[in-house]
Amino acid sequence: MRATVMYGTHDVRVENVPDAKLKEPTDALVTVTRACICGSDLWPYNSMKHSDIGNRMGHEFIGRVEAIGSEVRSVKKGDLVVAPFAWSDGTCEFCRQGLQTACIHGGFWGGTKLDGGQGEAVRVPLADGTLVRLPVGPDHALMPSLLTLSDVMGTGHHAARCARVGPGKIAAVVGDGAVGLCGVIAARRLGAERIIMLGRHADRVALARKFGATDVVSERGEAAIERVRELTGGLGAHSVLECVGHGESTLTAVSIARAGGAVGRVGVPQAESIPAAVPTFFRNLTIAGGPAPVRAYIEELLPDVLEGRIEPGRVFDRETDLNGVPDGYRAMNDRESIKVMIRF
Amino acid sequence: MRATVMYGTHDVRVENVPDAKLKEPTDALVTVTRACICGSDLWPYNSMKHSDIGNRMGHEFIGRVEAIGSEVRSVKKGDLVVAPFAWSDGTCEFCRQGLQTACIHGGFWGGTKLDGGQGEAVRVPLADGTLVRLPVGPDHALMPSLLTLSDVMGTGHHAARCARVGPGKIAAVVGDGAVGLCGVIAARRLGAERIIMLGRHADRVALARKFGATDVVSERGEAAIERVRELTGGLGAHSVLECVGHGESTLTAVSIARAGGAVGRVGVPQAESIPAAVPTFFRNLTIAGGPAPVRAYIEELLPDVLEGRIEPGRVFDRETDLNGVPDGYRAMNDRESIKVMIRF
Repeated sequence: MRATVMYGTHDVRVENVPDAKLKEPTDALVTVTRACICGSDLWPYNSMKHSDIGNRMGHEFIGRVEAIGSEVRSVKKGDLVVAPFAWSDGTCEFCRQGLQTACIHGGFWGGTKLDGGQGEAVRVPLADGTLVRLPVGPDHALMPSLLTLSDVMGTGHHAARCARVGPGKIAAVVGDGAVGLCGVIAARRLGAERIIMLGRHADRVALARKFGATDVVSERGEAAIERVRELTGGLGAHSVLECVGHGESTLTAVSIARAGGAVGRVGVPQAESIPAAVPTFFRNLTIAGGPAPVRAYIEELLPDVLEGRIEPGRVFDRETDLNGVPDGYRAMNDRESIKVMIRF
Repeated sequence: MRATVMYGTHDVRVENVPDAKLKEPTDALVTVTRACICGSDLWPYNSMKHSDIGNRMGHEFIGRVEAIGSEVRSVKKGDLVVAPFAWSDGTCEFCRQGLQTACIHGGFWGGTKLDGGQGEAVRVPLADGTLVRLPVGPDHALMPSLLTLSDVMGTGHHAARCARVGPGKIAAVVGDGAVGLCGVIAARRLGAERIIMLGRHADRVALARKFGATDVVSERGEAAIERVRELTGGLGAHSVLECVGHGESTLTAVSIARAGGAVGRVGVPQAESIPAAVPTFFRNLTIAGGPAPVRAYIEELLPDVLEGRIEPGRVFDRETDLNGVPDGYRAMNDRESIKVMIRF
């Protein structure tokens, strides 16, 4: 079969790899029908040291179940399923509490040992805990939005939950990538009274406004902090969604939160540390977040997608087939595209 | 009148200062009947650069109202009152939400402009928002426990709340000072199933056990982390109360929290930063805390003190008069004493 392999910085190839197949009795074999490229794929795209064997890529996909192991009960051949960006057993202490990204027996797609979503098929470990059946056909018009449930919509929702967004609150979203845009959807869905988007790309900011952003701050650094203060009567936002992961964006996030507020961070941290004293401790900020347990959120968000109340699929502004994946990485890295969907 | 003034490292003096008196119509004048020395007073005791004018000290006191300004309504002459370690208006956005340590018009005792609690009398700004009347006489046997409501008991409670202690949870308390010991009381009061105390002083650990600690870890650093893991089935504690503020204690606190857990920190941070990635982000830890809004907690905790359900006053293991305050600092700094109470 064919799949995407990254060999180093700016070196992404689509090539022949061993066919995916069942290995454990808890596995499912899934033929991928839709996948995508993630903003977090751009971190290794810009920093990976050369590897002779390469890393299989992709952690967001929808596909059809082709075969199941003898112990799989929750899905069957022919089902259309969505996979979260982490696989999990669904039964351990952490899974039962809805934190599947800490599953004791779980893990992440791709790398050197597992299939990735940016390929024709995937062996899915722990299929009962991992996969969620979709009640639609593989070419349904909602495919883009359903695909975001594998990562970015659930991740934006996690940021909003960790930032304690709720009715009457002022939310601020740092980062206008696909996760930040989904964070706007999530903040609106959870009842935020105002949603301030910190972003600078005209197309993304326009989409943020469609998703419910009430204010846009295009400044950066100190100027952005000052502008958010002006917009919030000098107090800052109750809830800040950190959707980038840079040191500067994290500092901006904690600086624009009001005393007693919360920062929900889901951008994979590229910085070593968070300030310990001012402005976090002395203002009683809560800092929460991490890899989103999107598996837990799929059930909560799926009805809103199926009934059209939220349209996170609008973050996809480019489509490609598998052969176009390397150029998709380039386009996202050059900010030509917000997020690229792969059709098989 | 006489009051405690700190002039530099290990230089604490009791001397004559201008009499406290009413200045604003919202002030009360309070004659101090009980005060104490705080672990946080030891930070400047060990690091303050010499000052010719000195800093007035003390932020925990109980006293009798001697006079009130024309606008004060909630207390009257003769009332016995307890003061939280921060004064606040009680009416601003933050006070209404119970975060009086972020009061827009509030502040902290002592320094170069205000009286401190370690003196014969205090001008109390914003008396209506700040003071809480006590329904007992000034020599009631519960004075030590009531005095802890000005800081350490409310601070331990804040740590427990920020760490999301609740029924069935495993709590761990880092630090066996007065705040950590009150954190044990708070964790038990909030229903923790197990309470692991990390501490090394025999007298403090013994008191922690009386307060409800079920396990004691006397190792430090990596060994302490390993021991807590053993005690928690390899997973760590749900709720960690960081009651020290050092870089090492903060790192220990985040390291012993289980995935999805929370660290409530109330130790004044002496470190510059908190790790951003492993172990905080990738384990979805929540880090919360800051200066405790003890004013909000006095009403919640006061009935339990008055009815003897909690006895935080047992953290006082030494008493002195005002003249003995400099030696009280020395005794606490030398770990001869957990916490020193001052009788007037």
